Amino acid sequence: MPRVTDDHLAARRRQILDGARRCFAEYGYDKATVRRLEHTIGLSRGAIFHHFRDKDTLFFELAREDAERMADVASREGLIQVMRDLLAAPDQFDWLATRLEIARKLRNDPVFHQGWEERSAELSAATEARLRRQKKAGRLRDDVPSEVLQTYLDLVLDGLVARLASGDDPKKLGAVLDLVEASVRQQGSGVS
Amino acid sequence: MPRVTDDHLAARRRQILDGARRCFAEYGYDKATVRRLEHTIGLSRGAIFHHFRDKDTLFFELAREDAERMADVASREGLIQVMRDLLAAPDQFDWLATRLEIARKLRNDPVFHQGWEERSAELSAATEARLRRQKKAGRLRDDVPSEVLQTYLDLVLDGLVARLASGDDPKKLGAVLDLVEASVRQQGSGVS
Repeated sequence: MPRVTDDHLAARRRQILDGARRCFAEYGYDKATVRRLEHTIGLSRGAIFHHFRDKDTLFFELAREDAERMADVASREGLIQVMRDLLAAPDQFDWLATRLEIARKLRNDPVFHQGWEERSAELSAATEARLRRQKKAGRLRDDVPSEVLQTYLDLVLDGLVARLASGDDPKKLGAVLDLVEASVRQQGSGVS
Repeated sequence: MPRVTDDHLAARRRQILDGARRCFAEYGYDKATVRRLEHTIGLSRGAIFHHFRDKDTLFFELAREDAERMADVASREGLIQVMRDLLAAPDQFDWLATRLEIARKLRNDPVFHQGWEERSAELSAATEARLRRQKKAGRLRDDVPSEVLQTYLDLVLDGLVARLASGDDPKKLGAVLDLVEASVRQQGSGVS
C-alpha cells in the first residue's frame, strides 16, 4: 500500500470537489444523488465520504471556496466587481443555479441554514469592511445606513444570479451594474 | 349525472389551482409529484388532468394568475409597489421559492422557457407602459435607457424573491426598496 502523503490527500480532495461541482451544476442540488456523485467524481461513496462527511458537507465546502474567492475580490474591489466577474464567467451559471434551489432548504432547515451562514460569513465580512473603508474615504453615499447598502448589494447579487441562471444576456446585465454602482456612490465621487 | 354548469367548472378549476399552489409551495417544483398533487387537491389525476393538460400547464396557469395580479398593480403604481406588496404577504414566500427552483429548467428547456415567457409577458408589458408614462411625466431619470431601468427592476424583483425565500427580514428589505425607488427617480422629483 502506498504511503498516503499530504499531496496525495490534497489531490484526492480536489478531485472530489471538482467532480461534485460539476455534478451539482449538471443536476441541481436535489438531483445530485450519491450515485451521480460517484459517477461524476469517479470514486466510490466510501472514498468520497471518507473525505467529506455527507452531501451537504461537500456542498458547503464548494460554497466556502466560492465565498473565499469572492471575499478576496470584494475586499479589494468591492461586491460589484464580484458581480462583474460573474458576468464574465458564463461557465459558472449552471453551478450558480444551485444557489437558488436551496432557498427553500435555507428557510426550513435550521442546521442547513447555519452551515450556509457560516460559509458565507467571510464574504459578508469582506463586503462590510470594504463599505466601511469606502464610507470613510467619502466615496459612499452617507444618507443611507451602511447596513441598507449592504443588504441592497446582497439582494442585487442574488437577483443577478437568478437572471443569469434563467438565461438573461450578460451584456444587458452589465449596464444594470453601472446603475447599481452609481446608486451606492457619493454624488460627485468618481470612484465607487 | 348532474348537469355540469359553468359555475361548477369554474369552482373545480379553482379547487385544482388552489391545491396545486399549496402543493408547489410545500414541496417545491420538482417534488410536487402527481401523487402529491392528487393528495393536496383532493382529486384523482384523471380529474385534474381533464382540466389542465399536465403539471407544467398547471404551474404556468398559477404563474399567469400571479403575473396578471402583479401587472394590475404595476400598471397603476409601478413594479416597486408590486415588491412592497410581496413584503407584506409572508404567506406567499414558500410559493415564491418555486420561481427560483425553475431557473435551471428555464435555461435548459426551450419549450418551458417559452411557456414561462408567454405568461410573464403581461407583467413586462405593464411595467414597460408604466415606465414610459413616468418618463413622459418627467418622474423617471432620463440619463439611463428605459430598457436598462426595466432590467434593473426585474433583477431587483428576482433578488427580493430570493432573499425573502431564504428567510431575510422583510423590514430590512423595505429600506432597500426605498433606495431602489430613489435610484430610478428623476433627481428632484417627489413622486416615483
